[in-house]
Parts: sequence; structure tokens; C-alpha cells
Amino acid sequence: MPSISKKGQQMPASPIRKLVPYAEEAEKKGKRIYYLNIGQPDIKTPKIALQAVKESNIDVLAYSRSEGSEVYRQKIASYYAKHNIDISYDDIVVTTGGSEALLFTFGSIMDVGDEVIVPEPFYANYTGFSTASGVEIVPVISKIENDFALPSIDAFEKLITPKTKAILICNPNNPTGYLYSKEEIQKLAAIVKKHDLFLVADEVYREFVYDDHVHYSIMQETGLENHAIIIDSVSKRYSMCGARVGCLISKNKTVIQTVLKFAQARLSPPTLAQIASEAALETPQSYFDDVIEEYVSRRNTLIVELQKIEGVKVAKPKGAFYCIAELPINNSDDFAQWILEHFDVDGETIMVAPAGGFYSTSEVGLNQVRIAYVLKKESLVKAVNILKKALKAYNDSCV
Amino acid sequence: MPSISKKGQQMPASPIRKLVPYAEEAEKKGKRIYYLNIGQPDIKTPKIALQAVKESNIDVLAYSRSEGSEVYRQKIASYYAKHNIDISYDDIVVTTGGSEALLFTFGSIMDVGDEVIVPEPFYANYTGFSTASGVEIVPVISKIENDFALPSIDAFEKLITPKTKAILICNPNNPTGYLYSKEEIQKLAAIVKKHDLFLVADEVYREFVYDDHVHYSIMQETGLENHAIIIDSVSKRYSMCGARVGCLISKNKTVIQTVLKFAQARLSPPTLAQIASEAALETPQSYFDDVIEEYVSRRNTLIVELQKIEGVKVAKPKGAFYCIAELPINNSDDFAQWILEHFDVDGETIMVAPAGGFYSTSEVGLNQVRIAYVLKKESLVKAVNILKKALKAYNDSCV
Ligand SMILES: Cc1ncc(COP(=O)(O)O)c(C=O)c1O
Ligand SMILES: Cc1ncc(COP(=O)(O)O)c(C=O)c1O
Repeated sequence: MPSISKKGQQMPASPIRKLVPYAEEAEKKGKRIYYLNIGQPDIKTPKIALQAVKESNIDVLAYSRSEGSEVYRQKIASYYAKHNIDISYDDIVVTTGGSEALLFTFGSIMDVGDEVIVPEPFYANYTGFSTASGVEIVPVISKIENDFALPSIDAFEKLITPKTKAILICNPNNPTGYLYSKEEIQKLAAIVKKHDLFLVADEVYREFVYDDHVHYSIMQETGLENHAIIIDSVSKRYSMCGARVGCLISKNKTVIQTVLKFAQARLSPPTLAQIASEAALETPQSYFDDVIEEYVSRRNTLIVELQKIEGVKVAKPKGAFYCIAELPINNSDDFAQWILEHFDVDGETIMVAPAGGFYSTSEVGLNQVRIAYVLKKESLVKAVNILKKALKAYNDSCV
Repeated sequence: MPSISKKGQQMPASPIRKLVPYAEEAEKKGKRIYYLNIGQPDIKTPKIALQAVKESNIDVLAYSRSEGSEVYRQKIASYYAKHNIDISYDDIVVTTGGSEALLFTFGSIMDVGDEVIVPEPFYANYTGFSTASGVEIVPVISKIENDFALPSIDAFEKLITPKTKAILICNPNNPTGYLYSKEEIQKLAAIVKKHDLFLVADEVYREFVYDDHVHYSIMQETGLENHAIIIDSVSKRYSMCGARVGCLISKNKTVIQTVLKFAQARLSPPTLAQIASEAALETPQSYFDDVIEEYVSRRNTLIVELQKIEGVKVAKPKGAFYCIAELPINNSDDFAQWILEHFDVDGETIMVAPAGGFYSTSEVGLNQVRIAYVLKKESLVKAVNILKKALKAYNDSCV
């Protein structure tokens, strides 16, 4: 029997996936599960986006241009202009989700054995894309005690080697909800310029920014033109994760030309979804206002409820729709599985994402879980109540 | 300025892309171009597929499962059953086009430096996927004199090294139109079993088979269960290239588990397009009968017209919708560009794909072009007439 690749063996399984059989089992037993583990919002997709597909008049569902249709890219550029980010349509390559933009970025700027520094905890699939590309993620730890703020410049510089090609941040952050300040972005800008690195910013949660905070994009930083690469996506912004449309933006022409070659090999991003995504750009501001209001109040509810539990530590998210909670336990993999297998309150239980999968340093984050606040407030209150009782029962059963 | 990757530098530009500026220039001058260079059929997408999307009732356009929805995979399995290919829904991973299935295959079965043997000429983007994966394509030449039949077993065995992990065929073939016989598939089966390799068959043109020929799939060959991987796609079958839906099929459970990890990292194939693709499976047989009839008559027209030109050699395609033509010239890159720049018949001109891009052996195929018969017969006749006159003018101007 022929053997699969080493790379294939090393590819990480989704950290959430391991729990799926236990969740299925629980559902079979008739339990209701509050899924706190996934980044699939329950928010409705703007009607205007879906309607555009319904009203489209297609005879032949043809490939689009590999870089995305010119009209769509023009409109994306206008979207950024509204957000005070000045780019041209030809700085943009439309991709199959932010996921593909990440994969193309890894391929375009890094070779096998190269290194990318990523503040930890980070979006788990970065590990998948780096493994697929043969690239090493070098983590720099950010701490719950500091609300997961940017680690010191020193901490970054210590990690830079001749193999370092880039720093990758996610802003606002999944899984921490942290929003980098203008000053922090400027510190990063200084490092990448000094060491001639790329600065890749995954800004798929750009508009999910709460309270009085303002998102500062790496593209707003002058002098960074040749270094900055933005990863973006329609998935979360318009709650249309299934579209599979994103984009990669850079003013570095060589980067765009290189990314385009990867894009040409796979022919085209999805055509129907581009129709929806183009129309989604016309979504009225009121939609976003409502969505932000909803997330703020969900976040507030979640944080208040979590803080009521003894021994739980949580950093208040400034953006995105996740938070990391530190629990009075030793192993959240075990705890998350135990809940699904053994615990419920009146037939209801919860699924959380063990945070180990968001760290590449081993043994770190094992007492943390990621909670996505993509459920209605009433559900969040019930879910946290289940968590509270589960913690007690689990710790009692362990002694 | 930070530098891009070696891999990125090595990524091939699309062989057709180089000619695009010349085509655009010709169009600006008001010339009409017959595009013989692309694999984008003009055939209408089945109404039933597009209608399903229009009638869908979606509130939240959510991610689908990473491996594709279970219902859709069940229906794909039934499709294969109708074609006498016995697979189960869990042998299938739905992908973003056949392109992504190829990328996942390369990643799952080969590491950097590994080798895959591919009969040449081959689909140009195989080079892109192999470069992206750090894998070497080792070409085994098939010849126009033999209608591009499978090279001898000997020719394959000479190329096998400890680094060889797979043989990749495209059946029916793009760019040659060759259809491998049952005997040829069995020869390949014997080699891969003997040397413990994978046999990857790109069968995206499976149903485009003409005259009395019958397609023999590698999945129909017993004893090959652990070796066989099929690449498939809805792109050409239902003329819905822009959907971006394909799949990867294998009965080797380790392969499927590994591919699934790559699939999980990118979250999900496109949801709207899966709705269209699922509905497309209900396309009535009459649609395919009409399409095949149309392609057969286009092919016949094309071949007859080409054979009328002195010095032109052409292998009669048994499937797909491409053919390779050998022309009485030395350099088809130069010739293709020259036509666009300097030649027209009453304001009409043609774009052909120079065949060099379909060979990885350098200096081979330089007197060949690939012609796609995706245009109506009247257009094909006119286009070949332009080719004929262009050949004369070009050769006259070169002396
Ligand atoms: C931080 C981050 N980046 C990228 C993605 C990829 O999303 P998509 O491929 O749907 O655009 C996600 C999805 O959850 C994410 O959380
Ligand atoms: C031989 C072959 N394989 C794979 C593909 C990829 O097609 P898609 O990604 O649209 O399924 C093509 C497209 O032209 C092709 O000709």
C-alpha cells in the first residue's frame, strides 16, 4: 500500500473536530447542545446579496478572471476608500475565502523551512496553511493577564532569524478578541521595516470593533507599501461564510504578480458567490449598526456571566466575536469532552473549543477555552450557567 | 524590500496569459478574435442547476461541511453507480473545483522533492500545482505519430526512482483528446501495484467520449482500491466552470482522512455552487446527448478542415474537446503572437494556445498548438481558414 506524505501526516486535524463524535452522541441521546465552539454566526446574510444571485441572468456559468472580475475589484477598492484605506483595484486579488488568500500568501513569500512569527494564541488554521506550505510558525506569546496585547518589540526581535520572512497578525483577533492599537501597528511596522520582513494582517473581522475603539489597518500606515499584505473575506462581514469569497491586498507589485500565478493555476474564484459579494457591498449601514449592537450586547452578557464564576479569568474582547476564558481546570480537551459525554442541565449541554489548538507552544493554554458569542443572549446566559455547573461537577468528580 | 519566495518565482505564468495583451490590443483595433485557446465551453449550463440556486431559501449562507454535504455526496455516489463505478459517499471529498482536488492530492501523497510521472503533453496547470507543492513532474513523452497513446511500460519503468510516488493521467486527455483503453489502464494498474505507487486519474472529461469508445475508469479496475485517486469536476460536465465544485475520490481511507485535513483547513467548498451542482445531477440524458452530438460534429469539422492544410498533422481526438495540431512552423509562441499582432482576414483573427506550455521537456512541442473546439461549427471553419492563410503569410514573411 503506497504511503501518504509526511506533510499529510503532519497536517493538524481541526481542534474542534475531535469533539464532533461526542457532540453527535449527545445529540443522539436527545440532549440540546449550545455550540460555543464555532465561528459560524447566526446573523442573517443581507437580503441584497442573496437577491442578486436570484436575479442574475446566467446562461453559461463561466470562469471569472483568476484575479476576480474587474468591476468587483473596483467596488472593493471603493469599500476600502470609505474606510480610509487607499488602494487601487489592481492591488487586489479575489480569492476563495480568506483561507485561500492565506495559502497564496504563504506560498508567495515563504519557502520550505522559512519562518513566520505569529502572536499566540492564533487562528488554528494558520497551522494548517503553514504545514501545507512547509513553513514554521514561530509563536510569540501574548497573555491573558495583559488582555492579549501585543508582546514587546523585544520579544519579537529575539525570535527573528535569517529564515524569518514575515510577521502575521489577526486584527481584531480570533481567538482573543484583541484589537491592536495604532501604536502597536506602528511598532510592528518599525520591526518589519528594520528587518525587511512582510507584515501580513488578517483583517477579516475589521468591522467587528466595539465601544469607542477604531480599527487601524496596516494599509493606513505610510511607508509600509512594500511590506503590507492584507487578508480579507466576506465570510463574517456579511455573514456569508458559505460564499467562499475573500481577497488579498498588497501594493507590492511583485507580491501581486506572484499571487496571481497561484490564482491562475486554480483558474477562478466562485462566480455565483462573487455576484453575491459584489451586491453585499451595497448593504445599508443600518445592517452593520444592528449587527454591532447585537454583538456588543452579546459580548457584555457573556463577559458578565463568565465573571460571575469563581476562578474564571477572561479578557474583555474589543472586537471579533470570540473570547478566551481561563477556567479552574487543568486540561480543557478533557473537560470539553467530559461535558459532552457526562453533563447536562435539564437535557441541555455545551460545546466549547479547547484553546490548546490555538497555541503552537505545547502545554500552554490547556486551562483555556475559546467561546464564540454567535448565539442569542438568552442562549449565552443558559450556556454559561451550564458551564458554571459543569465546572463544579467536573472538579468535584476529579477529587 | 522583502523578497518573494523561490517557489513564487518558479510558479509558471499561464501559457495563454502571455498572449492576452496582444489579444486585447487586437480587439482595441476592432478585430474580431476566434478564441481557440480556452477550455471555457459556450454550452449552456443546465437550467435545473441555476434554477435550484434561484429557488433556494437561504437565511444564513453558512459554511458547508469541509468534505461537502452528506446528501450531495450520497448523490454523487449514485451518479457513479450509474456509470458502473462502485463507491460510497465517504470515499468522496467535495472540493473547490478539480483544481483543489489536484492540490490536495499533491499535498496528501507527496513531499517536497518527490516525483510524479505524467504522460506529456499534459494539462498546463499540473505544473502550477506541482511547483506549489515542491514536487517534480517527470514527463514521459507521448507522440502525435501514435495519436498520443500511452507510452510503453518500459518508458514508465525507466523513470521510476525511490522518489516516485505516483503516476498522473488525464483521461480523456486535455490537451490531446486521447482516451486510454481498458488495456492501457490495466498496464498502468500493473505498474503502480508492482512499484507501490498511487495512480491519479483526472477524469473531469469522463463523459466527453465520442464515436463508439467507452470510458474505462481507474475505479473500475479491481485490486486498485488502495492506489486509485480520481479527480473530478462539475466544470465541464455541466458547463458550469464558474461554480468551482469538484471532488476527490479514493477507497484508500488514509488518503481520504489526509485530504480531509487539508479540506478542514480551508473550511468549506462553496455553498451556493454545491446547491447548483447537486441539482445538476438531475440533468436529463437528452442534454448530454445533444452536447455530445454537438462536440462530435465540431470535432469532425475541425479535423477535416485542419487536414486540408498542407503540412498540418493532427491526432483525431476520442474525447474531451481539445486537439493538438502540429504546424509547419518552428515556434508556435512566436506564431500565435504574430497572428494577433499582424494578421487578420477581413478584420477577423484567431488566438491559439502554443503547445510548449503543455510539455515540461524543453524544446518539445514548439511546432504544436492546442485548439479547443468550444466554438460553433461556422466559427471553427472560419477560424481554421484564418489559420491556413496565417501559416502561409507567416512562412512567406519569415523567408
Ligand atoms: C482569523 C480568521 N482568518 C481567516 C478565516 C477564514 O475565513 P474564510 O476562508 O471563510 O474567509 C477565519 C474563519 O474563521 C478566521 O477566523
Ligand atoms: C484536465 C483538467 N483537469 C482539471 C481542470 C480543472 O478544472 P476545475 O478546477 O474547473 O474543475 C481542468 C480545467 O480546464 C482540466 O482541463
